[in-house]
Amino acid sequence: MTTLELTLSEQVRQQNPVVLTITNAVTPAKVADALSAIGASPIMSLAPQEANEMVTLANAITINLGTINKEQVEEITTVLKENRDQKPVVLDPVAVGASQYRLTVTKNLLQNYQFTVIRGNAGEIAALANVNWSSHGIDGGSGQANIHKIAKKVAQTYHCTVVLTGNTDIVTDGNNEFINHLSTNYFITNVGSGDMLSSITAAYLSVSDSPYLAACTATKFFTAAGVKAAREATGFGQWQVKLMDELTTLDPNEVLSFL
Amino acid sequence: MTTLELTLSEQVRQQNPVVLTITNAVTPAKVADALSAIGASPIMSLAPQEANEMVTLANAITINLGTINKEQVEEITTVLKENRDQKPVVLDPVAVGASQYRLTVTKNLLQNYQFTVIRGNAGEIAALANVNWSSHGIDGGSGQANIHKIAKKVAQTYHCTVVLTGNTDIVTDGNNEFINHLSTNYFITNVGSGDMLSSITAAYLSVSDSPYLAACTATKFFTAAGVKAAREATGFGQWQVKLMDELTTLDPNEVLSFL
Amino acid sequence: MTTLELTLSEQVRQQNPVVLTITNAVTPAKVADALSAIGASPIMSLAPQEANEMVTLANAITINLGTINKEQVEEITTVLKENRDQKPVVLDPVAVGASQYRLTVTKNLLQNYQFTVIRGNAGEIAALANVNWSSHGIDGGSGQANIHKIAKKVAQTYHCTVVLTGNTDIVTDGNNEFINHLSTNYFITNVGSGDMLSSITAAYLSVSDSPYLAACTATKFFTAAGVKAAREATGFGQWQVKLMDELTTLDPNEVLSFL
Repeated sequence: MTTLELTLSEQVRQQNPVVLTITNAVTPAKVADALSAIGASPIMSLAPQEANEMVTLANAITINLGTINKEQVEEITTVLKENRDQKPVVLDPVAVGASQYRLTVTKNLLQNYQFTVIRGNAGEIAALANVNWSSHGIDGGSGQANIHKIAKKVAQTYHCTVVLTGNTDIVTDGNNEFINHLSTNYFITNVGSGDMLSSITAAYLSVSDSPYLAACTATKFFTAAGVKAAREATGFGQWQVKLMDELTTLDPNEVLSFL
Repeated sequence: MTTLELTLSEQVRQQNPVVLTITNAVTPAKVADALSAIGASPIMSLAPQEANEMVTLANAITINLGTINKEQVEEITTVLKENRDQKPVVLDPVAVGASQYRLTVTKNLLQNYQFTVIRGNAGEIAALANVNWSSHGIDGGSGQANIHKIAKKVAQTYHCTVVLTGNTDIVTDGNNEFINHLSTNYFITNVGSGDMLSSITAAYLSVSDSPYLAACTATKFFTAAGVKAAREATGFGQWQVKLMDELTTLDPNEVLSFL
Repeated sequence: MTTLELTLSEQVRQQNPVVLTITNAVTPAKVADALSAIGASPIMSLAPQEANEMVTLANAITINLGTINKEQVEEITTVLKENRDQKPVVLDPVAVGASQYRLTVTKNLLQNYQFTVIRGNAGEIAALANVNWSSHGIDGGSGQANIHKIAKKVAQTYHCTVVLTGNTDIVTDGNNEFINHLSTNYFITNVGSGDMLSSITAAYLSVSDSPYLAACTATKFFTAAGVKAAREATGFGQWQVKLMDELTTLDPNEVLSFL
């Protein structure tokens, strides 16, 4: 963890990058507020007709597969095709292990387009690695496999950085690995924590040349905000409120004290 | 109210049932957070292609008709057809009296599929009973008919448990009736209170053999959380926050003290 | 600012007008809660089949273009066609300058239907006036043109009242102009502030014969609630909570003290 890295948070606040999020239908407001809170500018779109211009004005893109259907897959494909300048793209394969449909769509996307970062929980990353895992809906579930090896394998297979989130977060580009122990159970109770981190990571990617360092820093900053919020909150609802407070005001230097 | 009943809340927390909610477009995040707060695991889907697997992994299902259109009716029908194991299903006929389209769709569903619980306000349950009622958008409205008789009639007609919510909640299976006086106006101001209770009821159904007792207990627990939150809150926004706090932490034994 | 005007807030609370909002996919819950908080009754719909009845039961309508696609444009057109009684309609052309698709759809709507109020930020109103402006996604952006003249031009061109929001809000019917300095940066951080004001304005339109006075009063009331919330809040999340508190309870007479 370096001071250099921490300046990424300041750069997001100063540069106000536009993050185009192809969102699920459940948590778009949470993702938009989280992006806005860290200093980025969210934009969302459901129309293939404007994909070209949306990609042009975006500094980074997040593809969230949480409630995909035929129409949204068309929208996603159009956005990815229009990304000729290869702006950084985060893939969030929500509950990819829960249905063959999600798995097929996700693997097709991974074969045809280059993603900068894949962010998912253990069950989701395991599904991408074809590893047996006991998923539990949108939750991480449990399994016997070594999640460090799974994350590394997915990063190497798809030539990208993987952020595997849980009680312990693993960030790896296939060679380097960063382990983040900052955690609170509120992240699990709060539906959309992963969606928020995926789009926050996209914002960080847009102000850094290193996807790995950007993903590490985004993960640290987001989880530090959550841990600080948990120290102050007396319950789940209050934690949600304080998380937004912290995302807005957390001093990047203070993040160091959490590590 | 028995200790046996109260243990349902603990069972939800321990068993972490997956509740598949076919949601309206307005309140999915509120419903997902409420389910997560009580210890259940929400999942949502917009794709008929994965309906079979979604139903398989779900322990209970909620069908919310708040913003139906042609595509969502297809999705709903597919989910209900795939429910061959007859997992418990809650129907939430939002504003069913507001348009002929909603009424026709709802009655078709009721004729072709068995629902375990119907949860609605007085105007919605009256519409299902073909009783004249002055609806007011998504609100309960007012009418001259006896809401106890209306709820009973709907329960008997559709062989299910009816939860009619308002200042006074009525839960009936057509024979037994439970009246719940726990109430706060914040439930009315908060858009999605009914949506939340419908999906919470589904979670309780998945851990009980008695739909009637499960619906009674879910209603008590949810309204007790709301009443306790109202005692602590100084305004509507704070109440929303404290409701989430209470749903997460409320001691089921404390619910007794509210009754 | 007159006492007469302030009574509009009381009238909304007493008359509980139904506001049909054709909403974007990001902030429907925020808009619904804001409407409910001020005493109005929100309703939302995605089905052209029920447009006639939805318009009939509504006292005012908001058309929000934040995430339009082909299906929603059909829905919007159907709603506007069904509005034969010319109930007041607010247009919210979210990020209209961000894509040719949004601009074409918006201009088509403006040519074919009469809107009572157009509510947008500087970038959005500038796009409608064909003025060069440096937009930044959903944010207001910056430009050299005189925003007072731009707002006036759009009001005169489309024979409506324009509410141009930003650090300073401008309300104009093409002849009169009201300038509102009540502001807090939290309005900008909070995704959906504009969406909320658009639908709140629709509620005020339904209880007034003067669109200009209704739009002025709605803007004052909403921004006063936000400024009061900002005085009490220690961060962004808390401000969101307190905004809902204030929308519910703010004494219209207290608004005077903010001006």
